[in-house]
Amino acid sequence: MPGTTLMPGSCQAMGTHMIQHTSPMPPLRTSRWFNTREPITLDALRGRVVVVHAFQMLCPGCVAHGLPQAVRLREAFPEDQLAVIGLHTVFEHHEVMGAEALKAFIHEYRLSFPIGVDEADPSQPLPRTMAAWNLQGTPSLVVLDRQGGLRLKHFGHLDDLSLGAILGQLLVQPIAPETLADEDRHGAGSCAGGACGALNP
Amino acid sequence: MPGTTLMPGSCQAMGTHMIQHTSPMPPLRTSRWFNTREPITLDALRGRVVVVHAFQMLCPGCVAHGLPQAVRLREAFPEDQLAVIGLHTVFEHHEVMGAEALKAFIHEYRLSFPIGVDEADPSQPLPRTMAAWNLQGTPSLVVLDRQGGLRLKHFGHLDDLSLGAILGQLLVQPIAPETLADEDRHGAGSCAGGACGALNP
Amino acid sequence: MPGTTLMPGSCQAMGTHMIQHTSPMPPLRTSRWFNTREPITLDALRGRVVVVHAFQMLCPGCVAHGLPQAVRLREAFPEDQLAVIGLHTVFEHHEVMGAEALKAFIHEYRLSFPIGVDEADPSQPLPRTMAAWNLQGTPSLVVLDRQGGLRLKHFGHLDDLSLGAILGQLLVQPIAPETLADEDRHGAGSCAGGACGALNP
Amino acid sequence: MPGTTLMPGSCQAMGTHMIQHTSPMPPLRTSRWFNTREPITLDALRGRVVVVHAFQMLCPGCVAHGLPQAVRLREAFPEDQLAVIGLHTVFEHHEVMGAEALKAFIHEYRLSFPIGVDEADPSQPLPRTMAAWNLQGTPSLVVLDRQGGLRLKHFGHLDDLSLGAILGQLLVQPIAPETLADEDRHGAGSCAGGACGALNP
Repeated sequence: MPGTTLMPGSCQAMGTHMIQHTSPMPPLRTSRWFNTREPITLDALRGRVVVVHAFQMLCPGCVAHGLPQAVRLREAFPEDQLAVIGLHTVFEHHEVMGAEALKAFIHEYRLSFPIGVDEADPSQPLPRTMAAWNLQGTPSLVVLDRQGGLRLKHFGHLDDLSLGAILGQLLVQPIAPETLADEDRHGAGSCAGGACGALNP
Repeated sequence: MPGTTLMPGSCQAMGTHMIQHTSPMPPLRTSRWFNTREPITLDALRGRVVVVHAFQMLCPGCVAHGLPQAVRLREAFPEDQLAVIGLHTVFEHHEVMGAEALKAFIHEYRLSFPIGVDEADPSQPLPRTMAAWNLQGTPSLVVLDRQGGLRLKHFGHLDDLSLGAILGQLLVQPIAPETLADEDRHGAGSCAGGACGALNP
Repeated sequence: MPGTTLMPGSCQAMGTHMIQHTSPMPPLRTSRWFNTREPITLDALRGRVVVVHAFQMLCPGCVAHGLPQAVRLREAFPEDQLAVIGLHTVFEHHEVMGAEALKAFIHEYRLSFPIGVDEADPSQPLPRTMAAWNLQGTPSLVVLDRQGGLRLKHFGHLDDLSLGAILGQLLVQPIAPETLADEDRHGAGSCAGGACGALNP
Repeated sequence: MPGTTLMPGSCQAMGTHMIQHTSPMPPLRTSRWFNTREPITLDALRGRVVVVHAFQMLCPGCVAHGLPQAVRLREAFPEDQLAVIGLHTVFEHHEVMGAEALKAFIHEYRLSFPIGVDEADPSQPLPRTMAAWNLQGTPSLVVLDRQGGLRLKHFGHLDDLSLGAILGQLLVQPIAPETLADEDRHGAGSCAGGACGALNP
């Protein structure tokens, strides 16, 4: 059943549940990336709010609702403030949703944001990130704040108003300086740090 | 042309322009209200974020996009945090969009949020609030923060993600105590004050 | 409840019920017309298939589904083969859905097909054509064949495939020569007669 | 470019072009079928109107528009009057749109009408039926009359009203007795023959 997973200490801040106190997020474990020159790590995204859209290319709800929402997210927010990442979490029909099939899918659907392939685990159907993050299925939305803390984990479709409200709330929050990587803290052209300063003078 | 009106000092906070420094908002001037026992004033809404949806019942864009968005807003956010108000700003076809016509419209479309009739001005087509607020047409969205400050004035349709982000940003901001009416400041059952405390301990 | 009214002798020809044997249709009784220089009579439409879309301007289902379908009908079929007529059958809120209100509505929604105002009956809420045709409510679709015979009376929305199939079936049927008005039979520039000849050589 | 292919002698019967005089249709050449116990041949469909929806599982327009229309067709018309067939005409990304991938796709999208795999041709990208039928791309609609004659070949999306009109016109046409297979001709209880008799007494 679609729903929002709450951790202890969460509260209903607005129309949608948002996680208030959170433990460290296990890292992305991926076997391949599309639409990015370098593999993406959560650490490298610190300073930006992050939306990870977990999907499968043969999941009708992902194709009809989740991926179009990811495209709208990319259009509605500046890239240096919000990172939008696709994560191909194949847990069924593995043999026909490999990386080459995904590549054709990305090409045909003209998806331009970075999409990682969740690393398969030979010992079980769930791929490694999906298992470590305890995702229930696809589509799932995972939202991290600028410090990399988990703020939302939602299975099923979440309406644009509620998702927008969560992102607006997180985008306006300051970045704790200690969470930035060294180069960002010293501000060598970090767009994330710069934009944050503009938001929170 | 649809667009977002910016005041001096505004900046593009996120994907959507939001007004940063604002002057006091002229009061609502209305001749009749529906779906509320008491006429509504902006002062009485202090402490809550406010969305005013300015519309005309014979405006196709309002019926197809604006009013459904207002209904979604009412469903997505708690009433003690976000006030959703309709404002019938008739500036054309005055003779067939009177209060009785609006009453039938509200009944048929099952609208349940408060809707005020912008007071007609015999000396010109624009009704008084619309003129004082300098609205360009319908549909228009006006968003006020918890202090009653103008934060968005948008003519035409604004997508749910961008609107949600603005509201999320405003909902998380604290209420300056001096902006609350006396009874709210002393907190006798003020849901707005109470919810704000929960958000900003 | 939406549904299709069947007359004795009807049968389910295809996916949708179509009336097979029909009695003469009571004439249109209208008090005013828009988008036509001359009042329209059913007799004058003989030779063409006719769709009458009965609606009320404050009926949400008419605005959201019925009228857009009428617009699509006008675009999908040649005017000399299919006549699309709106009929404003006001049976509630009479005081705010008068002809002037309808005029503004037609203007704002950019409706360009002929629309007649069903004549009010001071002795009862239902207007005269609606009562004589025994329509259950709005939106209602009435379809007549080239001879003027009633072939469909549907309350509520009918999907485009089913409606298209009924019209396709009727459009391909020949016109019985005796049903044409004199000027049509002698062919003085009647586009309906001419097109019919092209279809049924 | 999407469009309707016309053969010599065709004419614009209604809002949509329909082929009037037609040559024999090359047979289906398929390597596998889903949702049917027996492979389907055009000969076996004689007596029914036939819609073949040519698609590729990674074609966005097919997934968003074509296949949902095929589902609506199946719901709107009786199965003994109209046959709805999917044809997987893979002409690109062959390696990831094989029969096993299609099987997973059909399962996930809950498609229940018969779907054949157009037979690959090792000497060229186009599969054999697609080449023989001279289809331009996907989605494509092919409509055959009760005699098996080609009546429509449309590349791109065709609106429901126009498609419905073509089908309605064809459904009402009688079956020429010589086009039926022997068992149908002698067939007490042939639903196709029986329904046709009911439509055309």
